[in-house]
Amino acid sequence: MAAAAAAAPLPRAPVSSPATRAVLWPARSNLRTAAAPPLGALGWRRRQHFPVVSMTPGSAQSTPAALAVDPKVEALLDSVKWDVKGLAVAIAQNVDTGAILMQGFANREALAATISTRKATFYSRSRSSLWTKGETSMNFINVHDIFLDCDRDSIIYLGTPDGPTCHTGAETCYYSSVYDALQGSKSNQERQVATTLYSLEDTISKRKEEIVTEGSGKPSWTKKLLLDNQLLCSKIREEAGELIQTLLENEDQSRTASEMADLLYHAMVLLSVKDVKMEEVLEVLRKRFSQSGVEEKASRKKS
Amino acid sequence: MAAAAAAAPLPRAPVSSPATRAVLWPARSNLRTAAAPPLGALGWRRRQHFPVVSMTPGSAQSTPAALAVDPKVEALLDSVKWDVKGLAVAIAQNVDTGAILMQGFANREALAATISTRKATFYSRSRSSLWTKGETSMNFINVHDIFLDCDRDSIIYLGTPDGPTCHTGAETCYYSSVYDALQGSKSNQERQVATTLYSLEDTISKRKEEIVTEGSGKPSWTKKLLLDNQLLCSKIREEAGELIQTLLENEDQSRTASEMADLLYHAMVLLSVKDVKMEEVLEVLRKRFSQSGVEEKASRKKS
Repeated sequence: MAAAAAAAPLPRAPVSSPATRAVLWPARSNLRTAAAPPLGALGWRRRQHFPVVSMTPGSAQSTPAALAVDPKVEALLDSVKWDVKGLAVAIAQNVDTGAILMQGFANREALAATISTRKATFYSRSRSSLWTKGETSMNFINVHDIFLDCDRDSIIYLGTPDGPTCHTGAETCYYSSVYDALQGSKSNQERQVATTLYSLEDTISKRKEEIVTEGSGKPSWTKKLLLDNQLLCSKIREEAGELIQTLLENEDQSRTASEMADLLYHAMVLLSVKDVKMEEVLEVLRKRFSQSGVEEKASRKKS
Repeated sequence: MAAAAAAAPLPRAPVSSPATRAVLWPARSNLRTAAAPPLGALGWRRRQHFPVVSMTPGSAQSTPAALAVDPKVEALLDSVKWDVKGLAVAIAQNVDTGAILMQGFANREALAATISTRKATFYSRSRSSLWTKGETSMNFINVHDIFLDCDRDSIIYLGTPDGPTCHTGAETCYYSSVYDALQGSKSNQERQVATTLYSLEDTISKRKEEIVTEGSGKPSWTKKLLLDNQLLCSKIREEAGELIQTLLENEDQSRTASEMADLLYHAMVLLSVKDVKMEEVLEVLRKRFSQSGVEEKASRKKS
């Protein structure tokens, strides 16, 4: 985790001032230690300091002299299959929600800077310079891990955004559904790319808004749950009981998946009543792993 | 949903035979209907047939004559900012897990083919031809929705894969962690890019394997739960109760997030005991939305 970097307010770092950037963002990385495998599982381990990268903005193709990095970083950068312009596709993804936030391109220096600073950094083809997402908006993407694909020409920056990623203020740049457009719908930032869990969360959230805007009328099941805490709580208890039953009575796997879906849905309605996002829940789980582990925490509770 | 297409076994469709492909994969899309908003929430609605695309493999830059598509599709293809080679980045993402499966490039014809066939289709720069992921391996990526970014030069194919996406047999092409590599670890397909929920699932799964390979020894909390169904079930009941309590006793939001994290973790240990994947649970939720809605299903259960 880049928690320290994420928590500290970061002054603007102009792309034209690599020296400033280097001072502002001390390099860090992870240590894999045999003694702490549970921490390794989510990829956030103890930090190790790498030498700070000296960057030369304005050139996509860097020369060896333009970089002064750890030899291991240098070897890694050598292993990337940069295209003829010295670029590779770089995709920023939210580690907690899985949302693809944006896609840009990285050159050697941009990847080196991201490795070192843990702030998602790209190469702007239009401005011919490095740019760190957030350097203007302060909505940095705090990078927890970086993955290369099997061809080593595509990069994922897996991290947590400080705020909306898109310049429009949307959480992600992807809010134009092709099939919606073909049906004549205009782009709608409320219809952002979302995986199943977050689409469900959006739907529950819409039902909640409808209660306010349209009245409860003949309410859907979700609305009934949103309006009746006792009903909601009894359903959560019931669904937890049914999930347990699939184990104790050795019911088949499809029953288990179905009962878990029920429990998850009803619990997410409770989250909506409490104005808590699934992203916050996953952040809790991630932080437990990066500290003493969910197992240890849960163990302390069992007595 | 492209459920019908996903379910039907698809014969190989060579890229050199667009006519064959057109026959094999009838075009379809979604209809947004005011009458069925709950179904729209996840983006899977009733299908509408678009005219089949006639493709000319071998040219990244297509001429108008090479395409015979619906005028709305044509207009949409015109709105994409293709680069000087006629390409845009195309990212395939698993709609249920959020995993980024692979990244390639699409030209006009590849996007048209994906819109029409609902199979993720790319333009191979090395072979100078269209290729549909899965045409050799049969591991198609069944596309549920397609998103363009704010600049309209980057595409997400959001779908469900029929099998592993990577040619190596890995679920995703992204299994090389940069920070692991800098610590001297070799690429490891068990250490694929994964968001928090699936990293937690992986960790629980590893604990389960360790019980077999290393014996229970001095077991971690997860191992204790995995070995003791009664303990596991009592913890799930307890955590459901504590989540409910945060609502009934008006506890603060951080308590709700924390108790939901506890419930989710313990319920996921039960899934592991039953060999059920979170992906299957999310598939259940997605399918309920695309049929009669989770609300209606849940409503039927409440009596």
